[in-house]
Amino acid sequence: MSEKLKVAALQMIYAGSTDKQFENLCDQIRQAAQQGAQLICLQELHNTEYFCQVEESTNFDLAETIPGPSSEALGKLTKELQVVIVASLFEKRATGLYHNTAVVLDIDGEIAGRYRKMHIPDDPGFYEKYYFTPGDLGFTPIQTSLGKLGVLVCWDQWYPEAARLMALSGAEILIYPTAIGWDPRDDQAEQQRQQNAWQIVQQAHAVANNLPVIVINRAGLEADPSKQSAGIQFWGHSFIAGPQGEILAQADDTSQSILISEIDLFRTETVRRMWPYLRDRRIDEYFDIVRRFID
Amino acid sequence: MSEKLKVAALQMIYAGSTDKQFENLCDQIRQAAQQGAQLICLQELHNTEYFCQVEESTNFDLAETIPGPSSEALGKLTKELQVVIVASLFEKRATGLYHNTAVVLDIDGEIAGRYRKMHIPDDPGFYEKYYFTPGDLGFTPIQTSLGKLGVLVCWDQWYPEAARLMALSGAEILIYPTAIGWDPRDDQAEQQRQQNAWQIVQQAHAVANNLPVIVINRAGLEADPSKQSAGIQFWGHSFIAGPQGEILAQADDTSQSILISEIDLFRTETVRRMWPYLRDRRIDEYFDIVRRFID
Repeated sequence: MSEKLKVAALQMIYAGSTDKQFENLCDQIRQAAQQGAQLICLQELHNTEYFCQVEESTNFDLAETIPGPSSEALGKLTKELQVVIVASLFEKRATGLYHNTAVVLDIDGEIAGRYRKMHIPDDPGFYEKYYFTPGDLGFTPIQTSLGKLGVLVCWDQWYPEAARLMALSGAEILIYPTAIGWDPRDDQAEQQRQQNAWQIVQQAHAVANNLPVIVINRAGLEADPSKQSAGIQFWGHSFIAGPQGEILAQADDTSQSILISEIDLFRTETVRRMWPYLRDRRIDEYFDIVRRFID
Repeated sequence: MSEKLKVAALQMIYAGSTDKQFENLCDQIRQAAQQGAQLICLQELHNTEYFCQVEESTNFDLAETIPGPSSEALGKLTKELQVVIVASLFEKRATGLYHNTAVVLDIDGEIAGRYRKMHIPDDPGFYEKYYFTPGDLGFTPIQTSLGKLGVLVCWDQWYPEAARLMALSGAEILIYPTAIGWDPRDDQAEQQRQQNAWQIVQQAHAVANNLPVIVINRAGLEADPSKQSAGIQFWGHSFIAGPQGEILAQADDTSQSILISEIDLFRTETVRRMWPYLRDRRIDEYFDIVRRFID
């Protein structure tokens, strides 16, 4: 038995303006659809440059409501092309209340659901706590015509709890739009360790939950508007993995890429029979997971 | 700053009898100590063959109390060699009550603590649910003269919850004695996927918790006494990883090996400042982790 699905990860380089970038985005989506992709996944905050390198209040102008212009434009595309799109938007929920939100548009052009990024990072060059209120929709997969999508966003990728909760709620695929890169001042060995760690931890979400994983990262160097740093060299390296963590498709570190692979959703059934982790979870002994630290 | 520790993983091939194996074991421990190892980690159920390929009641004769002959003999060695040993024994706790138990012997020759395997597998050739009662000591690290050791055992390796709870309780190193191998009838691609999944998921425990990880697996082919299968080809591949999941030392798939590496416990401080995952855990939203499934 098999249940094949052709999926695409669109690794993009910011085109220099939001207009050009939206054109770039639509062009990439059309190309992916032409290549047969049914599920098209976009990188984190794909409409704009990664604006969190500085804390600048005018950047809140980049936010929009959902539904709003982007979800409507993308919804038209999904209906026209008969694909499902996983988008990542800067959501204005209310005056002074913003989220980093993934939106899923189904083949009918409608919003199938949204996920508001739960874990918000803050470190030099990634000042996200300034912009994004932590999500309050929980770790809830989004039902689409192609299956139940466990959409998480970037910093969430470091948290096995997030992937597990999506799996326990019946997610059939884990999807991570991300925007992560190197500080160009770090040496090559440190850069390699970081990129490997990032890939391994997400492959491991596949392994631990027996689910395919799609990771979409941006590429290209984006300057730091404050000039305090050397900017961020987004490391690309988007990938699609099967439910044993095996790499099915892998983009390079620098190019805009349409990464396409066929995944077999039935493979999860096979792998979960082989290594039935869900059967043996010690739910009687996990209660301390909700503690900050056990001291 | 640094806080260096020389650690060893002893990947062994069963020597054919428990007497020969214990001689083999002591010899390997002495060699590792001579090479400067301060912490010496042994594979799962190192005293015997992997007896769980069949359900056979006479195999309960292999179990022993803790303290008991093995913990005493190993305690003498740790005192003599001034090392810490992480051992893995078949524990007889009471008549009809057995555990798969890791025991840590400190440099004073005394038992520093024990961990009873919490997740017990059961699949063809690995009939552990017949032999081992699931552990009831929780996920509690063991304090030693060299630091706080997060000792887990084999099947535990697939559960991010276990690694996380050890980290939250202050573990400074994660240690996995394991006995895992291939069904020789599986094709090479499947074997490779399994071994990679096994390595990745444990590297990811390092990544997600910013802790070094030591994994000790047995090597060699052990026949199935029932002749119903082709036995288990234990896949070796023991490894030591740093707190970004980076491989510091790696054994091959087939040989008896003394794998040694220096790890720097201070590196966890550096890495946790860089990517502070513990700061951002959504403990307000993890409560469903203790559910079997969210349906």
